[in-house]
Amino acid sequence: MFANTPKPPYYAVIFTNTLSDNQDGYQEMAEKILALAHQQEGFLGVEGARQTLGITVSYWRDEQAIKNWKANSEHLIAQQRGREQWYQAFFTRVAKVERDYHFGHQK
Amino acid sequence: MFANTPKPPYYAVIFTNTLSDNQDGYQEMAEKILALAHQQEGFLGVEGARQTLGITVSYWRDEQAIKNWKANSEHLIAQQRGREQWYQAFFTRVAKVERDYHFGHQK
Repeated sequence: MFANTPKPPYYAVIFTNTLSDNQDGYQEMAEKILALAHQQEGFLGVEGARQTLGITVSYWRDEQAIKNWKANSEHLIAQQRGREQWYQAFFTRVAKVERDYHFGHQK
Repeated sequence: MFANTPKPPYYAVIFTNTLSDNQDGYQEMAEKILALAHQQEGFLGVEGARQTLGITVSYWRDEQAIKNWKANSEHLIAQQRGREQWYQAFFTRVAKVERDYHFGHQK
């Protein structure tokens, strides 16, 4: 649910997207890639929601961890199929989290 | 849909939340606050989605714009009611967008 991130600074990759009409194979790939991300060195957590727009925010220890993940061979295949088939459009933003605060019981 | 943000650097406020059982007045306030945000100096855009988790990412020219918005009197009232009534939990992260890239027709 909420990503249990450490004290800042750390990094966020904000991935917003709209889907194409052809979602064949998307769900299986999404689950596979999410499981792989969890195994990456420097992965801190992920939060996601989708209505018309999908938003996935993944959190990372540093820029090197993001670069390693972007170059992961399985992830490269997923990125390629994403551009060719699954996504109508997407926007990726890499941001350094400088401060955070939370409220309530769940973290 | 997608926020039409300028070239980095700029700021993102990543607000993730779960809702309480009492949503009386929430929708009206959310619409009012969103309209107010659009009028703020330095506001660049917003993207949102909700399933169980709600994610709203708002984009800002600089930290001062975020501070001004946080201190806006109408927004302060909304923040207070959010903590008292509407949100079960939330997490706010302030992050500096260092680089971005996009794919597809919609920006």
